[in-house]
Amino acid sequence: MKITLQQSELLKGVNIVSKALPVRTTMPILECIIIDASANEIKLTANNIELGIETIVEGNIIEPGVVGIEAKFLGELVRKLPSNEVTIDTDDRFHTTIICEKAEVKVSGKSAEDFVHIPIVARNNPIVISELGLKDIIRQTSFAAAQNNNNKLMTGEYFEISGNRLKAVALDGNRVAIRNINLKEPVEDSSAIIPVKTLNEISKIMNGGAEDMVSIYITENHIIFEYEKTTVVSDLISGEYFMIDKMISPDFITKMSCDKKQLSDLLDRFSIMSNETDKKPIVFSIEGQTVRMSIDSFRGSMNEELEIKKEGDDMVIGFNPKFLMDAIRAIDEDFIDFYFLNSRSPAIIKDADENYNYVVLPINIGVR
Amino acid sequence: MKITLQQSELLKGVNIVSKALPVRTTMPILECIIIDASANEIKLTANNIELGIETIVEGNIIEPGVVGIEAKFLGELVRKLPSNEVTIDTDDRFHTTIICEKAEVKVSGKSAEDFVHIPIVARNNPIVISELGLKDIIRQTSFAAAQNNNNKLMTGEYFEISGNRLKAVALDGNRVAIRNINLKEPVEDSSAIIPVKTLNEISKIMNGGAEDMVSIYITENHIIFEYEKTTVVSDLISGEYFMIDKMISPDFITKMSCDKKQLSDLLDRFSIMSNETDKKPIVFSIEGQTVRMSIDSFRGSMNEELEIKKEGDDMVIGFNPKFLMDAIRAIDEDFIDFYFLNSRSPAIIKDADENYNYVVLPINIGVR
Repeated sequence: MKITLQQSELLKGVNIVSKALPVRTTMPILECIIIDASANEIKLTANNIELGIETIVEGNIIEPGVVGIEAKFLGELVRKLPSNEVTIDTDDRFHTTIICEKAEVKVSGKSAEDFVHIPIVARNNPIVISELGLKDIIRQTSFAAAQNNNNKLMTGEYFEISGNRLKAVALDGNRVAIRNINLKEPVEDSSAIIPVKTLNEISKIMNGGAEDMVSIYITENHIIFEYEKTTVVSDLISGEYFMIDKMISPDFITKMSCDKKQLSDLLDRFSIMSNETDKKPIVFSIEGQTVRMSIDSFRGSMNEELEIKKEGDDMVIGFNPKFLMDAIRAIDEDFIDFYFLNSRSPAIIKDADENYNYVVLPINIGVR
Repeated sequence: MKITLQQSELLKGVNIVSKALPVRTTMPILECIIIDASANEIKLTANNIELGIETIVEGNIIEPGVVGIEAKFLGELVRKLPSNEVTIDTDDRFHTTIICEKAEVKVSGKSAEDFVHIPIVARNNPIVISELGLKDIIRQTSFAAAQNNNNKLMTGEYFEISGNRLKAVALDGNRVAIRNINLKEPVEDSSAIIPVKTLNEISKIMNGGAEDMVSIYITENHIIFEYEKTTVVSDLISGEYFMIDKMISPDFITKMSCDKKQLSDLLDRFSIMSNETDKKPIVFSIEGQTVRMSIDSFRGSMNEELEIKKEGDDMVIGFNPKFLMDAIRAIDEDFIDFYFLNSRSPAIIKDADENYNYVVLPINIGVR
């Protein structure tokens, strides 16, 4: 194989597919990026079995062929090559020479024979969404998924398509994050549980333009994202997702509206009072048009008042400050509304149109 | 004690003295910042025994007193308080209330009785240098000092003042970094071995203005840096420093001049071929007006040519790429000159006026 291409184009491609490299693997070939110039395009691929990414890069094929190059080394090298034309030349035994200006590098490449290729999946009825829209959904929900694997379903994010409406849900047993967005075109109803890891990697590699569109295909076992010259194929998580609608009661006895920035700054200050081992609740004491917030911990105590607009009864309720903070960070609006039923029921943070819905379980602070 | 001061002023002071906090200590009081408002100024102090820093902050003393507050907590808190007036109020038992706008924090402070105060040292004949000048010297030499404690002297940096000339030297057995600068006024001859840690911390807390001056006092066991409203007192390392002049031979048989950026980019690329456990030399083959550089490692091989100006004989010599890179990064000039005697003698990188002098030991590559 012999190809030439620009350093910037190669670097872009390597950075994209590198998101699918395995953290650990017993198969050395999976630590490689496959450069496939066997057809009339140059395709880079990486695959960690659960997630595979391939992308087409611009360049000239002088001699067709395929080679695998250790990905970490390739990434470091390409980053440090001059911004000029790069030649990659491989012989029959995969000895590879990479030349850029006066720099010449020789490395041992690998045969792609043992590589686990990305599954070829039939693609019908794409869900079309802008890169910006998809990135926003991921940012606004994925934080609520579980970090550990105790419950596999909770490490996924639920996508439900119904008509022209996409609902995305993530939860971890303490909180739920829900976003609803409108698609340009209605599509066939479907649903899938996507590993949050996949979504986070996709979010990193997309440019996120409002005009750049992603096509999403959901099959029985896979989800495929196609955008620009890149294709991402991920396994789905199998199982029945949780009954979300039951968790969100439309009833409330207290509604509290406050300024997002004020609350966010306050929670940021309060966060220094607790640590991983001493998770003390932040207590909201809502009285009249004021909420007094307080926290007591091994470090001392902090309290602060915030002006609010309140409808309904006074209320005392406690929360894990981190869960509140995560939800509030994901909201782009300037004002936010909390809905409380009582001090033992989940609080709901939502906008009037329910474009978003954050549910946070309270911590029992012994209030009846 | 009761004081009021601006959050920004308190934050600046806390950030400065925090550089003298111990990494580990058996004395909890040393984990505190001492706020001393007993006289007619507010002084913050931290001290890890080897290094102590105190700084005066602007503010109002409503009730004189002294208290120690756990430094890490104080730093986090002050960083997150609103940019407004802060009140710090301590009772007889050091219970401390910190108020800023509507935020109120209560923490247990400590008596400063057990604090190890910074030694009071007689100050005569200051060496006066700009903050920029001192920061430059530290950046350009301190990297060459030893990282581990096997040889205490090598963890220090040698300052030698003679007339109006300050020479700074750091070395670790593989390389030597030397900088000479002129002082505005000649001072009494003196010398000291300063812990490199101290210099690195000072470098971080100084603004580094060309017009802002630092006064340096050297005594038998201490060095004191005074600038703006801050005083830094550090222990010195005792002992006889190395005989530097003997290491730098004025003889050479090959002089090589090259573009700094070109060489620096090249070394950066070559650095990816070696790692901590496989330190392979970069070999310079100087022939005519070209140097061919090459490296062979477990990862493969890399070679590249660079145009140079050469005087004297051709030469083949090998180096640890990291040591070369460190020296070249510290040089601000666009062109650099190497002086070689033979392939087993140290290479010297210096400018015509010997404002800087970097000595790098070669790696034996079996060339006679």
